[in-house]
Amino acid sequence: MDAPTPRTQVRRLPERAVYGRETIDAVLDEALICHVGFVDNGSPVVIPTIHARVGDTLYFHGSPASRMLRSMKQGIEVSVAVTILDGLVVARTPFHQSLNYRSVIVFGRARLVDGDEEKMKALEAVTNHVTPGRWEDSRRVTSKEAKGTLVLALSLDEASAKIRSGPPGDDAEDLGLPHWAGVVPLALVPGEPIPDAGVDWPAPDYLTDYQRPI
Amino acid sequence: MDAPTPRTQVRRLPERAVYGRETIDAVLDEALICHVGFVDNGSPVVIPTIHARVGDTLYFHGSPASRMLRSMKQGIEVSVAVTILDGLVVARTPFHQSLNYRSVIVFGRARLVDGDEEKMKALEAVTNHVTPGRWEDSRRVTSKEAKGTLVLALSLDEASAKIRSGPPGDDAEDLGLPHWAGVVPLALVPGEPIPDAGVDWPAPDYLTDYQRPI
Repeated sequence: MDAPTPRTQVRRLPERAVYGRETIDAVLDEALICHVGFVDNGSPVVIPTIHARVGDTLYFHGSPASRMLRSMKQGIEVSVAVTILDGLVVARTPFHQSLNYRSVIVFGRARLVDGDEEKMKALEAVTNHVTPGRWEDSRRVTSKEAKGTLVLALSLDEASAKIRSGPPGDDAEDLGLPHWAGVVPLALVPGEPIPDAGVDWPAPDYLTDYQRPI
Repeated sequence: MDAPTPRTQVRRLPERAVYGRETIDAVLDEALICHVGFVDNGSPVVIPTIHARVGDTLYFHGSPASRMLRSMKQGIEVSVAVTILDGLVVARTPFHQSLNYRSVIVFGRARLVDGDEEKMKALEAVTNHVTPGRWEDSRRVTSKEAKGTLVLALSLDEASAKIRSGPPGDDAEDLGLPHWAGVVPLALVPGEPIPDAGVDWPAPDYLTDYQRPI
């Protein structure tokens, strides 16, 4: 999507907005989790869950929202936010303190995935989104297990990205102040794999060399 | 808060729920950002922003929600989610794939902070939440800057935490499968501070030794 809708149009600091799908996809693909917002009896609810993108569709685990999925024959209106932190922005005044980040917000009506084939494809995508190659290197999900897993699908038609990068944006008259200013980069870093009880062989390369983005 | 309300009662996998304030506070204090959900014209909206806890109150930047704050004389109903990722849970079947995490969800009616003194205290808290000691080591926020910053306050009366930790939860009959299983730890790790143009002296200790939790 290259043109914003009224809802995805970024109003605050619009110079940080990006509407190109390439940028949106990169953020969705790198982030491990999303935060799903929905309205339950008129009140907002936000819940973290795991997602994966397949083409123009965002799939995510619906189990955390199961309490209100009973009534969603017509789908459920959601807002999904995905945020990656890239650094602390240390400005000369707290007024310009910020974080460097890449975020995506998607609006739309999520539908419950009920076809066996699509659900299995979505589960494969979610698995390989978190740990690429893991679907092929694990015991296959049974049909019964798939039936017990709620998966939601959301179109990426209404999505926008917002990015802040680079140094602090201090006012010109503050540049001579004696306070250190700059950026402290942040990254989500994997540690050494910890084997489960009974696993006495090395972890596979896709875990020992794990990194985001993939 | 040690007893859940109907809303904060964790329904899915309730064995992962924690309602003690000590746990809730630790998660809120460690996480750099929160995701705020609210209802705008009947539709859910989720937006990431920076927060800080002061005693029993969660403060967060309201500017991202400014489009709908005009009408919130009575406060605005929100759901705030804070999530820290601790690891990939690599199970023998994708059905048990998971993430280790610590999350908090807070429900309530956020009020706009309008007293100058409380707002300045909140800005100090948010600044020192992200980078402890920075408030004292930076140019003070002016009264005009404070007026231009929207800060919301939310009581922690209705909050709950949910934690998953430890090894994968594979079924007993899968434990003999030849697939590696275990946990890959994840941590948000700071890099070397990058000075802004014109800053030719070393970064302060609170940035070179930066870590979460503080």
